[in-house]
Amino acid sequence: MASVSARTEGAAMPAAELVVIGSELLLGAWVDTNGPWLARELRLLGVTPVRTWVVGDDETRIAEAVGRAAREADLVLLTGGLGPTADDRTRAAVARAAGVPLEFRPELLQEIEAVFRRFGVAMPASNRVQAEIPRGAEPIPNPWGTAPGFALALERAWVVALPGVPRELKNLFRSWVGPRIRERFGGGHAATRVLRLSGLGESAVGDLVRDLMVPAGDREVSLLSSPGEVKVVITARGPTERDSLALVEGLAARVRERLDRFVFGTDDETHALVALRAVEAAGWALASAEGWSAGTLAAWLREAGHPAFRGGMVLGPGAGLGREDDPAGRCLELAREAAERIGAQAGVALFREDELLPRGGTERLWIGVVSPRGQKARAIPVVHGDTSDAQRACHQALFHVRRLAGAGR
Amino acid sequence: MASVSARTEGAAMPAAELVVIGSELLLGAWVDTNGPWLARELRLLGVTPVRTWVVGDDETRIAEAVGRAAREADLVLLTGGLGPTADDRTRAAVARAAGVPLEFRPELLQEIEAVFRRFGVAMPASNRVQAEIPRGAEPIPNPWGTAPGFALALERAWVVALPGVPRELKNLFRSWVGPRIRERFGGGHAATRVLRLSGLGESAVGDLVRDLMVPAGDREVSLLSSPGEVKVVITARGPTERDSLALVEGLAARVRERLDRFVFGTDDETHALVALRAVEAAGWALASAEGWSAGTLAAWLREAGHPAFRGGMVLGPGAGLGREDDPAGRCLELAREAAERIGAQAGVALFREDELLPRGGTERLWIGVVSPRGQKARAIPVVHGDTSDAQRACHQALFHVRRLAGAGR
Repeated sequence: MASVSARTEGAAMPAAELVVIGSELLLGAWVDTNGPWLARELRLLGVTPVRTWVVGDDETRIAEAVGRAAREADLVLLTGGLGPTADDRTRAAVARAAGVPLEFRPELLQEIEAVFRRFGVAMPASNRVQAEIPRGAEPIPNPWGTAPGFALALERAWVVALPGVPRELKNLFRSWVGPRIRERFGGGHAATRVLRLSGLGESAVGDLVRDLMVPAGDREVSLLSSPGEVKVVITARGPTERDSLALVEGLAARVRERLDRFVFGTDDETHALVALRAVEAAGWALASAEGWSAGTLAAWLREAGHPAFRGGMVLGPGAGLGREDDPAGRCLELAREAAERIGAQAGVALFREDELLPRGGTERLWIGVVSPRGQKARAIPVVHGDTSDAQRACHQALFHVRRLAGAGR
Repeated sequence: MASVSARTEGAAMPAAELVVIGSELLLGAWVDTNGPWLARELRLLGVTPVRTWVVGDDETRIAEAVGRAAREADLVLLTGGLGPTADDRTRAAVARAAGVPLEFRPELLQEIEAVFRRFGVAMPASNRVQAEIPRGAEPIPNPWGTAPGFALALERAWVVALPGVPRELKNLFRSWVGPRIRERFGGGHAATRVLRLSGLGESAVGDLVRDLMVPAGDREVSLLSSPGEVKVVITARGPTERDSLALVEGLAARVRERLDRFVFGTDDETHALVALRAVEAAGWALASAEGWSAGTLAAWLREAGHPAFRGGMVLGPGAGLGREDDPAGRCLELAREAAERIGAQAGVALFREDELLPRGGTERLWIGVVSPRGQKARAIPVVHGDTSDAQRACHQALFHVRRLAGAGR
C-alpha cells in the first residue's frame, strides 16, 4: 500500500494526531469514517496527519493517547465519547491528561437546554454532565446536537475534542475548528486545489510530477490514491489570500501541463458528477445496471445528486445471465434494458463475466455503455477480488460514459 | 458512543492491539475495513482488542507502535506494508522493534516465484525483498498473493504481520493465524455463538442480560451494536470442544429466554439473508426501490447472494415524486412498481418523505412493503441525518418483509 504520498509525512507542515474514541469502533462493530474525513480536511488545511489512535471508551487509554499525542504533535483532534452516559469518558480523560479538574459551565448548560427546547423535548437530567469540560478549556458550542466540544492547550499541542456523530463533527469542524486551524497554523492564508485523475496509477502520476513534490515551507504537492482514482493535492500559503491562490494555480497549471488528459475534475467534483454533467450536456439521461458490485455504481451516481441520473438497477444473483456465450453483447443488452425500463437515453452496465454467461466465465469484469451516439463494451481483469475491483471498474465505466457523451479525453 | 460492550475491555481475556499500516489510510484516502474485520474475528476467538494504531508507511512509527504494543498486549496484529516497493516498511520496522536483522529466506522466494508462475507472469526483481523477514520469525506462506506474512515472539506478545490486501489478509487469518491463536490463547477449545437482534436498542438489550455479562475466565457475553442491530456475542472455553459448545449453548438459551422475539438470526446470518429466506418460503421473489439511501438496501439484499432477491432500483433525484400529498400511498406505489418492473411478487421501498411529495415533506423516512399477503407502510424519524439512518431504516424494512412473509415476530 501507499507510496509517494508518504513523503508528505516528513514535510515541514504542522503535524496532527487523531484519537478516535468508541468501543464499537475498536471492537469492529462500526467502521470509522470520521478519522479519514478529518484526515482529508486537515490535509486541505495544510496540516499533516501522522498517527491515528482508535481506543475504546476507557478513561485511562484515552488519557494516555491524548497525553502522548500532545507531546509529539502540534494538533490533537479527538472524536467521540462526549455523550451523556457513564461510558462517555472523553471529558474526564482529557481533564486527567491535562491534570485539571472538570468544571461545570452554566452557559453551556443553557445552550444544551436550548437545543432540547428546539427539538421539542425536555432535557433529561443525565445531559447535565455535558456542560462539564476541563478547567481552562474553551467550549465549542454545538447547535447541531447536545454534545458541545472543547479545546485547550496541552504540552506542545492544541487539543480539540469533537462529538462522534458525523453530522455534528462535520459542522463543528467546518464552522469552528477549521477557521481556527488556519489562524493558528496558517502563517498567512492557505489555499488548496485538488486535481482528480483517473486512468493512470499513483506511481505513474508520481513519476510525472515528482520534481513538483519536493516539500517547501510555503507549498506542497502530494498524492492521495484510491482504487481507480488519484488525487493531486496542491496546498500553498502566502501572506494574502491572493498570493496563496496564485501559488496554487501556478502549481496546478504545471501539473495540468503534464497530466491534463487524465484529469476529470477538481476539488469536490466526483467522477460520477462530471459524467452526469456530460450526459446532461449531450441532452440525455442515464440509467445503470449491475450485479456483483451490489450497487456501487448506482450509489456513486445517486450521491452526485444530479438529475441526469434517472435510476439504477441492481440485479439479483442469476438475473443477468444471457443465453449465449457473448459477454460483451449481453453486457450491452443489460445497459440497454436498464435505459429502456428506467426511461433514459443512455445506459451503463457493470457485471462479472460469470454473471453474463450461461456456463460461467473467466475472472473478468465487463463494462457496457449504450447511448444515442454509439456503444462500447470493454473487459478489465479482476485484481484483488474485493470491493476495490468494483471501484476501479466504476471509474472505467464513468470514463466511457463521458467519452460517448463527447466529454472524454 | 458505545456502552455495555465497553465492559469486555477489562475482562480476563487475552488482549490484542492492531497496527494498521498505510499512508493512504492515515491520510484519509481509504477507509480501513481490515482493522474492524480483524477485531471481530479476534472477539470470536475470545481475544479482546484494546487499541488500534493507524500509521503511515514510516519505519520509525511502525517500529514504535509494534514495540509499545508488544509490551502491553498478548497479541499484536499488523496489516499492510508487506509489498515489494520502497515504501513497504513493515518488514524492516518489525525487525528494528525486535532488534534483529532482516534475513533472506530462499524457501520463501521459491514460494513467491511459484505464485507468479501460477499467475502466468515472470517475477520482477523487486519482489525478492518479500522473501526477507526478521531473523527468528516464522514465515506465513501466502498462496493467495506475493506477500508472505510472518510471526515472532516479542516482549510479552506474539506479533503477527499480515498483508493489507483484504482477500489475502482474510485467507491467511482464517487458515493460519486463527487456529494458532486458538492453540496459544485458547486454554482448551473455544466456541462462539452470535445472536443477532433488531428492534431493541443496545442499552435495553444490556439491561435484560446484564447478569449474564459479568466476565468469567471461561465465558463471556458481550454486545456489539451497529445502527438498527445489536449482536450478543457469546464466547466460552472448555477442556474439549464439546464442553465449550455446551457452555455457549447454555448461555445462548438463557439469552433467548429473554430476548427471543428480537432475535432474527445467528452467527453469519444477516438480516437480509433471513428476510430473503422467509420470502422464498412464502413462494415469492423480492424487489426493492429506494432513493436517498443510494442503494444501501439493494446492496444488503444483493450481498446476501440469495436467489429470492430479483433486483433493486435506485431512483435518481426527483424520480420518486408523486402527485399527491400521500407519502404512505406513494411509497407503497413505488414498492409495487419495483416488483412489477423487475418481475417479483413482493416489493420493498425506502424513501425520505420529501422524495415522495410534490411540495416536499417533513424529516421522516418511509418504508413500504407490498406482498400477495398484504401491505404495510410505516414512517420512522430521521435521527442522525447520515448513513446510520439508512441502516436503521433497512433493518425496519427487512423486519416488515419478514413479517408479511409470515416469519416475523
